[in-house]
Amino acid sequence: MASRVRDPALADRGALQIEWAEMHMPVVAKFIRERFTREKPLQGVRIGAVLHVTKETAALVRTLAAGGAEVRLAASNPLSTQDDVAAALAREEGIEVCAWRGMNEEEYFSCIRWVTEWRPNIVIDDGGDLHAMLHREYPEIAASVWGGTEETTTGVIRLRAMEKDGVLKYPAIAVNDARTKMMFDNRYGTGQSTIDGILRATNILFAGKVVVVAGYGWVGRGIALRARGMGARVIVTEVDPIRALEAVMDGFDVMPMIEAARRGDVFITATGDKKVIRREHFEVMKDGAILANAGHFNVEIWVPDLEEMAVAKRQVRPYVTEYRLTDGRRIYLLAEGRLVNLVAAEGHPSEVMDMSFANQALSAEYLVKNRGKLEPRVYVVPREIDEEVARLKLKAMGISIDTLTEEQKEYLSSWQL
Amino acid sequence: MASRVRDPALADRGALQIEWAEMHMPVVAKFIRERFTREKPLQGVRIGAVLHVTKETAALVRTLAAGGAEVRLAASNPLSTQDDVAAALAREEGIEVCAWRGMNEEEYFSCIRWVTEWRPNIVIDDGGDLHAMLHREYPEIAASVWGGTEETTTGVIRLRAMEKDGVLKYPAIAVNDARTKMMFDNRYGTGQSTIDGILRATNILFAGKVVVVAGYGWVGRGIALRARGMGARVIVTEVDPIRALEAVMDGFDVMPMIEAARRGDVFITATGDKKVIRREHFEVMKDGAILANAGHFNVEIWVPDLEEMAVAKRQVRPYVTEYRLTDGRRIYLLAEGRLVNLVAAEGHPSEVMDMSFANQALSAEYLVKNRGKLEPRVYVVPREIDEEVARLKLKAMGISIDTLTEEQKEYLSSWQL
Amino acid sequence: MASRVRDPALADRGALQIEWAEMHMPVVAKFIRERFTREKPLQGVRIGAVLHVTKETAALVRTLAAGGAEVRLAASNPLSTQDDVAAALAREEGIEVCAWRGMNEEEYFSCIRWVTEWRPNIVIDDGGDLHAMLHREYPEIAASVWGGTEETTTGVIRLRAMEKDGVLKYPAIAVNDARTKMMFDNRYGTGQSTIDGILRATNILFAGKVVVVAGYGWVGRGIALRARGMGARVIVTEVDPIRALEAVMDGFDVMPMIEAARRGDVFITATGDKKVIRREHFEVMKDGAILANAGHFNVEIWVPDLEEMAVAKRQVRPYVTEYRLTDGRRIYLLAEGRLVNLVAAEGHPSEVMDMSFANQALSAEYLVKNRGKLEPRVYVVPREIDEEVARLKLKAMGISIDTLTEEQKEYLSSWQL
Amino acid sequence: MASRVRDPALADRGALQIEWAEMHMPVVAKFIRERFTREKPLQGVRIGAVLHVTKETAALVRTLAAGGAEVRLAASNPLSTQDDVAAALAREEGIEVCAWRGMNEEEYFSCIRWVTEWRPNIVIDDGGDLHAMLHREYPEIAASVWGGTEETTTGVIRLRAMEKDGVLKYPAIAVNDARTKMMFDNRYGTGQSTIDGILRATNILFAGKVVVVAGYGWVGRGIALRARGMGARVIVTEVDPIRALEAVMDGFDVMPMIEAARRGDVFITATGDKKVIRREHFEVMKDGAILANAGHFNVEIWVPDLEEMAVAKRQVRPYVTEYRLTDGRRIYLLAEGRLVNLVAAEGHPSEVMDMSFANQALSAEYLVKNRGKLEPRVYVVPREIDEEVARLKLKAMGISIDTLTEEQKEYLSSWQL
Repeated sequence: MASRVRDPALADRGALQIEWAEMHMPVVAKFIRERFTREKPLQGVRIGAVLHVTKETAALVRTLAAGGAEVRLAASNPLSTQDDVAAALAREEGIEVCAWRGMNEEEYFSCIRWVTEWRPNIVIDDGGDLHAMLHREYPEIAASVWGGTEETTTGVIRLRAMEKDGVLKYPAIAVNDARTKMMFDNRYGTGQSTIDGILRATNILFAGKVVVVAGYGWVGRGIALRARGMGARVIVTEVDPIRALEAVMDGFDVMPMIEAARRGDVFITATGDKKVIRREHFEVMKDGAILANAGHFNVEIWVPDLEEMAVAKRQVRPYVTEYRLTDGRRIYLLAEGRLVNLVAAEGHPSEVMDMSFANQALSAEYLVKNRGKLEPRVYVVPREIDEEVARLKLKAMGISIDTLTEEQKEYLSSWQL
Repeated sequence: MASRVRDPALADRGALQIEWAEMHMPVVAKFIRERFTREKPLQGVRIGAVLHVTKETAALVRTLAAGGAEVRLAASNPLSTQDDVAAALAREEGIEVCAWRGMNEEEYFSCIRWVTEWRPNIVIDDGGDLHAMLHREYPEIAASVWGGTEETTTGVIRLRAMEKDGVLKYPAIAVNDARTKMMFDNRYGTGQSTIDGILRATNILFAGKVVVVAGYGWVGRGIALRARGMGARVIVTEVDPIRALEAVMDGFDVMPMIEAARRGDVFITATGDKKVIRREHFEVMKDGAILANAGHFNVEIWVPDLEEMAVAKRQVRPYVTEYRLTDGRRIYLLAEGRLVNLVAAEGHPSEVMDMSFANQALSAEYLVKNRGKLEPRVYVVPREIDEEVARLKLKAMGISIDTLTEEQKEYLSSWQL
Repeated sequence: MASRVRDPALADRGALQIEWAEMHMPVVAKFIRERFTREKPLQGVRIGAVLHVTKETAALVRTLAAGGAEVRLAASNPLSTQDDVAAALAREEGIEVCAWRGMNEEEYFSCIRWVTEWRPNIVIDDGGDLHAMLHREYPEIAASVWGGTEETTTGVIRLRAMEKDGVLKYPAIAVNDARTKMMFDNRYGTGQSTIDGILRATNILFAGKVVVVAGYGWVGRGIALRARGMGARVIVTEVDPIRALEAVMDGFDVMPMIEAARRGDVFITATGDKKVIRREHFEVMKDGAILANAGHFNVEIWVPDLEEMAVAKRQVRPYVTEYRLTDGRRIYLLAEGRLVNLVAAEGHPSEVMDMSFANQALSAEYLVKNRGKLEPRVYVVPREIDEEVARLKLKAMGISIDTLTEEQKEYLSSWQL
Repeated sequence: MASRVRDPALADRGALQIEWAEMHMPVVAKFIRERFTREKPLQGVRIGAVLHVTKETAALVRTLAAGGAEVRLAASNPLSTQDDVAAALAREEGIEVCAWRGMNEEEYFSCIRWVTEWRPNIVIDDGGDLHAMLHREYPEIAASVWGGTEETTTGVIRLRAMEKDGVLKYPAIAVNDARTKMMFDNRYGTGQSTIDGILRATNILFAGKVVVVAGYGWVGRGIALRARGMGARVIVTEVDPIRALEAVMDGFDVMPMIEAARRGDVFITATGDKKVIRREHFEVMKDGAILANAGHFNVEIWVPDLEEMAVAKRQVRPYVTEYRLTDGRRIYLLAEGRLVNLVAAEGHPSEVMDMSFANQALSAEYLVKNRGKLEPRVYVVPREIDEEVARLKLKAMGISIDTLTEEQKEYLSSWQL
């Protein structure tokens, strides 16, 4: 099967988009690509990727191809594909794409299957659907994979569960857990783009609003910080007492969701768990409450409850669905409860994907180099890669930092002070 | 002449937009409208308005009409009209509209002329073009106007210049200077929506960027605050030493534009003056610098210099024009140097326009009530109106505040403590 | 009568303090003093001053003396005098001092009387007690005064009340209302030093605490900003709807004191009014609540109610009084309800007093220059003085700013755009 | 030897201090102490502690004693002892103290030796001097120790170096690395108290100042955050590229110290390394620059260089030493380069020590319970202890949080989504 995209004629527009992204991704699209082009470390390697098909992913895929890889790319979310970018990628040498915005569930999985059955050497996943399909339906192909990487918290949780159950078939690098990924992409990237998605969808004023953020992991704290930065009064909900305490010390109000539900104007979920906002919470919300999700799956806001409770439902703006309840209250669900930053805005800014994807590119290279040497376990990104990404990023920003003198290094490693 | 809009068929979509805005504008669209509907304080009054034709303006115009007024509305900017809203308004009783997005300069002024020649009793202006046309070309009609209002800093500066020159022909209320307008709309509204406009146009990451804000008036400080809230490193430029010092004490770096030009990643002008960023600054900017304007007129970033200096120019994303200079550097101008929040985003959020436009509605009522009693001068919004707007807004947000006891009032007014 | 201070032997230590202050007050102690020394604009003028006797006041008084003035200085608060500074000042040529920490009320007024009966030409006051005594008890001397200045909001309120009653006897400059005073001293100075005073008195952790700030004027917003800057969750109480709304938009929770009283860990009053926190509020506070005042008079927290309600009272740390209520709850009053920043810390940092006192010095010079030309009214600080202070301060910080081109000036003053 | 303190007569004053601290330390002084009193888990255990002898440490020691332990306490810093607290502790049952403010180096080590030679079962250290002495001079006693804990980053580095060299003789719990310690004490505690110490020492205005923070670990980021919260313009220096990048994304300027040295008004070191600010930096600093250290040892600001360069040196305020250089510039060193928050202020606020010391108390209990079962390695604080501390702290603050439903727990542990 050749590439399946919405419309190949969109390719020129997509190319312009990719150019814009690459301008803001100097680590992936300049520093690493120049070296890959020179050294061809991925020569002939089949890389199967399931990622949001955006202009930033295009920059990664093009760098992988520049390193000599053949790439098959499928969408990691039915609604997140940028059709023009997909078209532009599909016409490039060594790259095949199966993705279009608005694909249904069957189509979605057929594309992942198309990647799987191609017998990739390296797999790059975002959310874990590719890893899950390989292990559940194609154990024999899974066993042939050299190694994989995973972009999200959700996917890493799934991989670790597989590792714990003893069923993991190939070494997997938790790119999500790289310091230059997790602390940046999840916090600064999702933090900003979630606010951005809500603004584009609603154009509400954040100043003075009560914004409830569910979850105070990296994503949640990024959102809380940016919501406050826009002037909102922020309430955090948590299940982890240490994180809850940290949120309090950071100056946020913390309370159970059932209390927050009564006070919030805007609710944003970022927990990685299901049914975080559900019937009991909908029942006490204010008229006009707005709900958005920043977690990987559309299960955090439990839409089935809302559907059941509603007496009327309509689209009032793009990505804004109004549910009218029996008592007349109206609740506004954004992006059908899917990732609001990807559906209603453009996902992470390129600058932050530059760091995540630099980790992806260097981790793929690492897996190729270490083929056959790694146990089938979940690995953190090697520290050298992590620091190299930071160093290149600082270089791109024109920022220099101090280095330790020999005397200082020695001092740090000595205990007989 | 009947209404002139892009396409009457867009009216249904526009009506949905207006409904959304009115939901977030309880002061204008609920509290004041209910009273106006009951009391009809504007019965038979001809109100000529030149405003950005947005969903929020629609809420104001509908409230004026509910008060009994006939309204003629023209666009105050060639690029800011929401065509669907214009269509929805044009089909309402007592409201005529002349506005479409992308009108040329001649069309723009013909619409204002159409308002002027209608001999309005009350004029509502945004930027001062209506006031200027009345005084320059139709002095006799100007003399028949009962009173006017003005929405912007720029327009008020023009009105005060007219007052100083002794040519002002009718009393004018500087709605812009209302505390509930200036301190809110300019700061929280433009602050947020300027960031929003830049995000929609570019999708850049603000965290870590050096953002240069020219001007530390209410608009500038709103932008500086929100840019910092998004994680940017902010530099402020000023000409007023007191404001400059305030910016320093607020923790911003302050320096002349010629120095800031070398350091900035993003430049935002908010001064009300012309040529704030010009050839000498373009000459030293970094490759990739992004320029946006938040001031009323497109003169703050001096585009003619950029046009002269460029060897190539192209559109790389909607609202993003790339200028390539002889030395290869690329400079990105957003929205052609026009108001980035109106062109690339949706302008002020409804919530903040609720306050500006509550002042407009109540000031119009005040001018009608005081017809013939006011000298042709520039007036501040009466304190009672200003406070009433705040009281209604707090009420809408469900917030109550303290009141002084008699003993406390007495203490405050006594000097023999 | 010669100077009355605690102990002349403290003079050397005081001189060191003054040196430290003057190092951080380049506008008063370097730029203006150098000019005053050269030009002697106050030659032979008797200046009576009632000010907090601190190292910063010393810098002002020494600059006035350098300008040729004879100065008599009395304390404006019984608890705020730095005895070593008083001693150091008292030994200087042309300066007499009547002030010591812990003076009683009778002694306090006797010092002000000593200033009054000296028949000063110019009077400088902080709080209005000198102005009040002159007008109430010495109308004939008041009539001979060339002019006066006033440092505080409270004092200006009293002067305006006198002006309104038609009893004001000399022109008075509201130094408090200078932009370079009010917006800086009240906000950045009191903001920081109030937090500082509370920290020194209690050593509590601000992060995570609920801090209730009563009043959102310049002082209140400074405190709210700094409390948030230290990680507190801040609640604001107000009686002015516009200020209340501004506090909400700045991201603070706003509610009546009776509600805030139940939630607060720390309460700080900054209203200029009396009985802001009183019996009804004490009754619902949490065990351990801490109360501090940042307003001029010790009437904002109504101590008589607390005294009545308490079954036991003791000093637990310097400046911390514990009141034990019948139900066992303990309430901690700082600095007896007096200005916590002056009593428990060192008052405003020198840097910010540099600006207030530069206005004082230049306003005194202005009153001398314009002797006999000004009506007995309350005046704002002339704009030239205000801007000159800012310009000198920026110069001292090594910061330069932009200046308008001729073309830009013309643009701003033109309305026929 | 009995206790050695400055003056037993200070005990009453010290008891009042301890009461104040315990009021703000409900986890240690209420929840855990109540249980320890009931269960006596430390009955007869000899606990040797080397800690800053402050009112908060008193709360911990009294809780250990309440649990049945005998405690010997020595100072972990020659300048940090509160003499009244030492006196109050020394008169309590089961507690002996060797500490007074201003002890010399010989006295300092003699007190630690006195703890060591007592043959403690459990050792609690702050900085690692006790661990080092045990291993270096008393290997046989070290071998008899059941286990130890360590409070600081510096001490943990030393322990890990010992572990790596294979010389560690007993299991050691890195209390410093507990999430409820490191993320709170180092960040919120040192962050606030460092600013507090600088304020008490200098009374400078932070607003507008350029503050240079060396190191962006937990301590450094706390200081940077609070300095910004006070209105400063903050520059961060780092040697770790990932932390440096994080600082940039958090909106701070990042540059090498040699550049920052030219710009800073205030310098604060928080790196754990030596000679972070040295001759080359002193040479380019501005006249009036202020230097403070927040790291454990007084080696970060390299005072020997300053001493060599100075032509004059004097004490200008308590804890402020002025060094005059040959070119006339004056540099101000606070607290002789020692921990400014402990020397010039009161160290961590009680609230945050409540968490650190709750970890200490529960870790000591854990080491006793697991006597003989643990290898001589460096351990993290068990997750149950860490979470228990957070839970108790939230409870003390009256804050409740959500709990996972069974369905949510299952979702999180499942990978076959």
